[in-house]
Amino acid sequence: MGCNQLEAMLKKKNAVLVDGVVLNGQTIDSKAREQFFEKAFRMIIEEAVCKATDVTEKVCEWQPPEKLKKLLDLELRDSGEPHQTLLQLCQSVIHYSVKTGHPRFFNQLYAGMDHYSLVARFITEALNPSVYTYEVSPVFLLVEEATLKKMIEFIGWKEGDGIFSPGGSISNMYATNLARYKCCPDVKERGLSGVQRLVMFTSEESHYSMKKAAAFLGIGTQNVYFVKVDDRGKMIPEELEEQIQRAKQEGAKPFLVCATAGTTVLGAFDPLDKLADICEHHGLWFHVDASWGGAALLSKKHCKLLKGIHRADSVAWNPHKMLMAGIQCCALLVKDNTDLLKRCHSAGAKYLFQQDRCYDVRYDTGDKSIQCSRRADAFKFWLMWKALGTRGLEERVDQALALSRYLVAEIKKREGFQLIMEPEYANVCFWYIPPSLRNMEQDQEFWQKLHRVAPEIKERMMKKGSMMLGYQPHQGKVNFFRQIVISSQVRREDMDFLLDEIDLLGKDL
Amino acid sequence: MGCNQLEAMLKKKNAVLVDGVVLNGQTIDSKAREQFFEKAFRMIIEEAVCKATDVTEKVCEWQPPEKLKKLLDLELRDSGEPHQTLLQLCQSVIHYSVKTGHPRFFNQLYAGMDHYSLVARFITEALNPSVYTYEVSPVFLLVEEATLKKMIEFIGWKEGDGIFSPGGSISNMYATNLARYKCCPDVKERGLSGVQRLVMFTSEESHYSMKKAAAFLGIGTQNVYFVKVDDRGKMIPEELEEQIQRAKQEGAKPFLVCATAGTTVLGAFDPLDKLADICEHHGLWFHVDASWGGAALLSKKHCKLLKGIHRADSVAWNPHKMLMAGIQCCALLVKDNTDLLKRCHSAGAKYLFQQDRCYDVRYDTGDKSIQCSRRADAFKFWLMWKALGTRGLEERVDQALALSRYLVAEIKKREGFQLIMEPEYANVCFWYIPPSLRNMEQDQEFWQKLHRVAPEIKERMMKKGSMMLGYQPHQGKVNFFRQIVISSQVRREDMDFLLDEIDLLGKDL
Repeated sequence: MGCNQLEAMLKKKNAVLVDGVVLNGQTIDSKAREQFFEKAFRMIIEEAVCKATDVTEKVCEWQPPEKLKKLLDLELRDSGEPHQTLLQLCQSVIHYSVKTGHPRFFNQLYAGMDHYSLVARFITEALNPSVYTYEVSPVFLLVEEATLKKMIEFIGWKEGDGIFSPGGSISNMYATNLARYKCCPDVKERGLSGVQRLVMFTSEESHYSMKKAAAFLGIGTQNVYFVKVDDRGKMIPEELEEQIQRAKQEGAKPFLVCATAGTTVLGAFDPLDKLADICEHHGLWFHVDASWGGAALLSKKHCKLLKGIHRADSVAWNPHKMLMAGIQCCALLVKDNTDLLKRCHSAGAKYLFQQDRCYDVRYDTGDKSIQCSRRADAFKFWLMWKALGTRGLEERVDQALALSRYLVAEIKKREGFQLIMEPEYANVCFWYIPPSLRNMEQDQEFWQKLHRVAPEIKERMMKKGSMMLGYQPHQGKVNFFRQIVISSQVRREDMDFLLDEIDLLGKDL
Repeated sequence: MGCNQLEAMLKKKNAVLVDGVVLNGQTIDSKAREQFFEKAFRMIIEEAVCKATDVTEKVCEWQPPEKLKKLLDLELRDSGEPHQTLLQLCQSVIHYSVKTGHPRFFNQLYAGMDHYSLVARFITEALNPSVYTYEVSPVFLLVEEATLKKMIEFIGWKEGDGIFSPGGSISNMYATNLARYKCCPDVKERGLSGVQRLVMFTSEESHYSMKKAAAFLGIGTQNVYFVKVDDRGKMIPEELEEQIQRAKQEGAKPFLVCATAGTTVLGAFDPLDKLADICEHHGLWFHVDASWGGAALLSKKHCKLLKGIHRADSVAWNPHKMLMAGIQCCALLVKDNTDLLKRCHSAGAKYLFQQDRCYDVRYDTGDKSIQCSRRADAFKFWLMWKALGTRGLEERVDQALALSRYLVAEIKKREGFQLIMEPEYANVCFWYIPPSLRNMEQDQEFWQKLHRVAPEIKERMMKKGSMMLGYQPHQGKVNFFRQIVISSQVRREDMDFLLDEIDLLGKDL
C-alpha cells in the first residue's frame, strides 16, 4: 500500500493502525461482490442446472488431461482476477465438467438432480454450519435426529442411533470399529498389539471399502476373509459358516460379518436372514452395507430384497445414491441403544463439549463422530423427503427399477446384446457383441476381442459426449457394460437411445 | 393410483406399463419445481446471505431443544408438502440457525462468509461431482492438483503429494496411517496383532483428534504419549525427547510425532525446528497439524510462526478455518514423492479404476483416499484464491491478527478484563471479572465464582442473540472466554462491542 493511500485511509473516521494494518471497519467492496454473486448465480442456473440436465445437451465435453490444463487457467497468482474473468472461468469449469445430473449419465451409483435437495444444499452452504454441538447447529442436529429416526423405522428397529458420515466407506469403517469395540472394548485404549488376531467376513462381491477399513483400522487386509458368492453374486451362507470355522481353527477371533445389500457391480443382495442366523449363532456383529440397496426399503414392492435387515447390528445407507440427495449423504445406523457410538468414539474434549451449558448436552453429537467439524448432510435428504413424502421417494425407486426391467426386456429383444444375468436391482450388466464377432466361435480369441469392445465404445461415447455408462471385467468375465438407472429425469426413450447409441458406436468394431 | 388415472396415462404417446409403473417419459412437473427453486433462491440470498451477515441482525435465535422441535415441523410423512409450506419451512430453518457468517460470531475456528467460495460451492452442489476418477471429474481433479501444488509451495517443499479430506481430524488420521505404513508396511496386510506396541507423541495441547486417530486405527489411546507444554502452550522439546526414551525403554516402537501449529484453545505454535531435529535423530515421521495455523503461511509477516514446517513429513491444513473457504475444506499434504499415499491406501478396485482407459490413469485419485465418493472441496478454495490472489488471502490473515492485537490492547485498558496470556495468533483468551469479584481475595471461593461467570454470560448473550464466543476451563484455569477473530467482515467496532457487551451482560453477576 502506498503512503498516500495509507494516509487517506487513516483519515477516515475511527481508523486505527495496528501492526501495519489499517482497521477502519468494513474494508471490502460488498456491493461489487454482491453483483458478482448475482451474475454468477444466473450463470449457474443456466449452465449447471438447466443445460446440465437438458437431454439435448452433451453429457460431457471430453478433453485429455494435458489439453484441459491448457484450456483452463489453473494457476494461482499473487493478484486476484477481475469478476469478468472469474465468471468466464466458472463457465469453463462447468463446460468441461461431466454433467452427472444429465438424464444420460448412467456411469456411477449416483446420478440426476433433485431441486429440493439442491435448495437445501444452497442453504447449508450459505449458513456454513458444523453439526457437533446443539449450541452452533440447533436446527441441523434436530433435523439429523428426525431423519435418522425415520430411517431406523424403515430398517424395522424399534429404536437405535446413528450418524451421518462422509461416505459409505467411512460408514463401513464406523461399523467395523463398533464391532471391534463391542467384541474387545479394551482395544480403544490399549490398541491391537498383543491382542488375538481379529477376523472379519464379507463376500467377494462386497465393496472395496471393507478392505480399506481393515487396513486403516489396523486389522489388516489379510484378516478380511472373503466369502464365496453364488452365480448371482450373493454370499453363500454355508461358505460363511466354513470361513468362520477356519478362523476359529486358526486361533483367530471372528468379530464382524458384513453383508451387502446391493453390490457395486451386479446389484446383488446377500441373504440377510440366513446370515443373521449365523451371526447370532456365533455372537458376531452383523453389519449390512446397504449404501446402494438401502433405497429399496422405501418401496413396498422391492423392500423384500432386504428381508432380514432388522436383524442387523448396523446398517450403512447412502441416500445420495438412488434417492438423489446429493453427494455426500450417508448414514450409519446402529441398533444399540446404550450409547455405543459415543462410548466407542468419544475423546471427551472439554473445550468443545462443555457440560455446564444451558441445554441438555445429550443433543451434542461430537462424541459419536470420528470427525470434529461435520457437514449438515441430513438436511438435504430431510427437505427432499418433506417435499416428496415417503410416497414420492417410493415412486422414485419403483420407477428406476421398472426402467431397468424395461431395459432388460429390450436387451433380450435386440441382436448383439447379451445380458450377463437377470438383475435384481438397478444394475443392468450386458455385453455388446459387434457384428464382426457375432458368428465367431466363443474361443479365447473371441473373448479377447470382446474384452476390447466396451472400452472402445466408452471412449467413443465420451468423445462424442452422448452418454456415459461404465464397464469392467468381473469375476473372470471380460469387460461388460454396467448400466445404472437412477434419475427420475430418465425416460423410457433414454433406455432405447442407450441401446441404439451403443450399436451405432460399436457396429464397426 | 386410481384406474382412471392409469388409463389416462397409458393413452399418452409411447407409454409403457412395467411392473405396475407407467413409463412415459418425463413424469415430474419441472416447471413448478423451477419456480420453487427460483423463489427459494431469492429467499436464501435475502435470509441466509444478506441478513445472516448483517451486523444489525441477531447472531442466533436461541430456543431450547424441546421447544425448537415444536417450532419446526420435523416429522417426515407419507405425502409431500406443498411448495409454499416448504418455503416457510426453509425460512424457519434459516431463522433458528446460528449465523456463522455474522460479523459477531466468534465462537469457533471458522466464521464469516466469502462470496467467491459460496459461488464455487453452488457450482459443485449443482454439478454433484465425485473426485475419484478423471473420467467423471476432469476439472475438479486438475483443480485439486493445482491447489495442492500451490499449498506445497507455501509449506516450502520442492515436491509432494496430497489429498483433500473431510476434516482435519481425518487428515490427522491419514498422517497417522502414513507414518505407520512407513514404519511397518506389513501392518496394512497383516494388522497390528502380534506387532510390537507402537507409540505416537503429541502435546497435551494438541487437538483431540490425535486420540481419536489412535483409537480408530487400533493403536490405542494409551499409546499416545502426551508431551508437556510450556506456559504458552508449546510442546517442550526436551520433554518429547524424554517421552521417546521412555517408550523405547518400555520396549515400544515410536513411529510418529505430531506437532501443532495453532492449538485449539490458546493458538500456540510448537517449536517445529527443534521438534524436527528430534524426529530426524530418531527416524520418526514428523506430522504438523496446522489445521488452524496453516493460514499464517500466506502472510509474510506471520509465516515465521511456522518456521521449520518444510521439515515435516506431512501437514494438515484447513482452508475452511481462517481462510474462510467454507466447511469442509481440509488438505493433507505429504512430502513423499514415491506414491506413498496411494500405496498406503489403495485397495485396487477394478470396477472403478480400470487401467484400459483412454487417458493417463495416474490422474485418478481414488487409491489415495480412504473414501470412495469424495467431494470437490479444493474448488471453493481455488476459486477464492483466484479471486483474491495470494495477496488478498495474506491481507485476510494480517487483518485478523491485527484485530486480535487491537482486542488485546483494549482488554489491557479495561477494568475487569484479564488476559490469560499474550496471544501469538487469533485466539484471545481472557477472563471477565464482574464488579462483585473485583476486590475479592483470589482464593478458592473467588475461582469457584469466576468459573460460573463465563457460562452465565454465554447463556445471556445467546438468549439475546447479540454475539457468540466460546469459553472453557483449561489446564487448571477456571472457565475463560476464547475469542476467535477470523472474518474479513469483522470491524474494529465489533471488537469494542464485544467487550462492552460482556460487561453489560455480566456486570450484575
